[in-house]
Amino acid sequence: MTVETVTAAVLVIGDEILSGRTKDKNIGYIAEYLTQLGIDVREVRVVPDVEEEIVTALNALRHRYTYVFTTGGIGPTHDDITADSVAKAFGVDISEDPRVIALMAPRYKPGEFNAARRRMARIPHGADLVANKVSVAPGFMIGNVIIMAGVPAVMQTMLDDVTPRLKTGTKMLMETIDAAGLAEGTYGGPLGDIAAAHTGATIGSYPSFLDGKFSNQIVVRSKDAQVLAAAVADVHAMIARLNAARAAG
Amino acid sequence: MTVETVTAAVLVIGDEILSGRTKDKNIGYIAEYLTQLGIDVREVRVVPDVEEEIVTALNALRHRYTYVFTTGGIGPTHDDITADSVAKAFGVDISEDPRVIALMAPRYKPGEFNAARRRMARIPHGADLVANKVSVAPGFMIGNVIIMAGVPAVMQTMLDDVTPRLKTGTKMLMETIDAAGLAEGTYGGPLGDIAAAHTGATIGSYPSFLDGKFSNQIVVRSKDAQVLAAAVADVHAMIARLNAARAAG
Repeated sequence: MTVETVTAAVLVIGDEILSGRTKDKNIGYIAEYLTQLGIDVREVRVVPDVEEEIVTALNALRHRYTYVFTTGGIGPTHDDITADSVAKAFGVDISEDPRVIALMAPRYKPGEFNAARRRMARIPHGADLVANKVSVAPGFMIGNVIIMAGVPAVMQTMLDDVTPRLKTGTKMLMETIDAAGLAEGTYGGPLGDIAAAHTGATIGSYPSFLDGKFSNQIVVRSKDAQVLAAAVADVHAMIARLNAARAAG
Repeated sequence: MTVETVTAAVLVIGDEILSGRTKDKNIGYIAEYLTQLGIDVREVRVVPDVEEEIVTALNALRHRYTYVFTTGGIGPTHDDITADSVAKAFGVDISEDPRVIALMAPRYKPGEFNAARRRMARIPHGADLVANKVSVAPGFMIGNVIIMAGVPAVMQTMLDDVTPRLKTGTKMLMETIDAAGLAEGTYGGPLGDIAAAHTGATIGSYPSFLDGKFSNQIVVRSKDAQVLAAAVADVHAMIARLNAARAAG
């Protein structure tokens, strides 16, 4: 089969994540969302609210992946420096965007559309807007970079809005198989053999620890349904074999 | 005052985080833990189970920060390639470590300490062990890099174990001030002035969106208690002034 690969990185911008003050909820959401679309997330970075760090990370990522999705730093306060940093990374000017002014101005009473709020209308030149269905002030897309809010509810509406504009690749198919009480160390050897035999699939083994006990899941991923099915069948057979051996004692 | 700065990066290793299959719980925990110790987390990266990616990220981070903490990829299955990748990054050999064999061997019945489980005893030469109080197979510390498990309960015991070996810096002090119903756009201007006037403090404004409403918190951070207190006082005065204006309004 022909596999189309579209890749992405996520760049989380915010001191509050690095200090642990705010626990990020966007990485997992975006990763799952893009995977389901057929966009493979290959890397995530979290950087502080420091222009040089944002510019460096953004330039490293945008040249390497099909898309970069950023979260955070587009509000009305002094620590919201994402839009300016993005303009710097792309080497373009930034100024108040009349499209954003037109969206935002009617929302405020006379005198309330102040300088702080107008900061949210500063958009790098050449960017397209990304709608915010919660609180109007938009994100934007410039080149292959999508700039979104950090507040999860707002970010999620922006992701929905930009989705029709994204090219997508062959979807990664995924099947999860419960290891049925087998220890990772018990199936590690044969699972490695199965992984080596099915090079078109990626096989992972994921332990969880709950109430003092480990339980394991085996995840098989492939973009080819036949390759997936063959690897999954081998994993099921392996589990049956090991459990029979265990029962036999 | 004399400020000692000790920095860290977190490197999360695992396809399952990038696919969204597993929602990371370690980044926030480690960030909060290290911040409280007096170690400033400056960057986080998430990379897949691909040796070249792990080596590249690890080498970028370990030369830049005092410490790098990794999570994931040290179990007994074929996709656990962190220890070998770390050895490669450091250019050292890796083999079964007699200290780990001595820890692990007594835990298994005859014949059960198989090749897969012995993979967990592979430790890069020159590393010190980091104890795992949940399931024995240890993490390790080599140079300035601490290698921990991905399962949160296990990772947390490793972090506790390594803590006495870490140098720590001046603790970042942090105060959170509720914005008392004020909109970010209302206080964005004056808060920026306060931030500019207190260069020894970092001030952030963090909106949350819950039940259809935004609420905002202002976080002031500094390593100097006097600087912190002065900035916090100015923020409180600003909120009182803006709320009085609103009431008069």
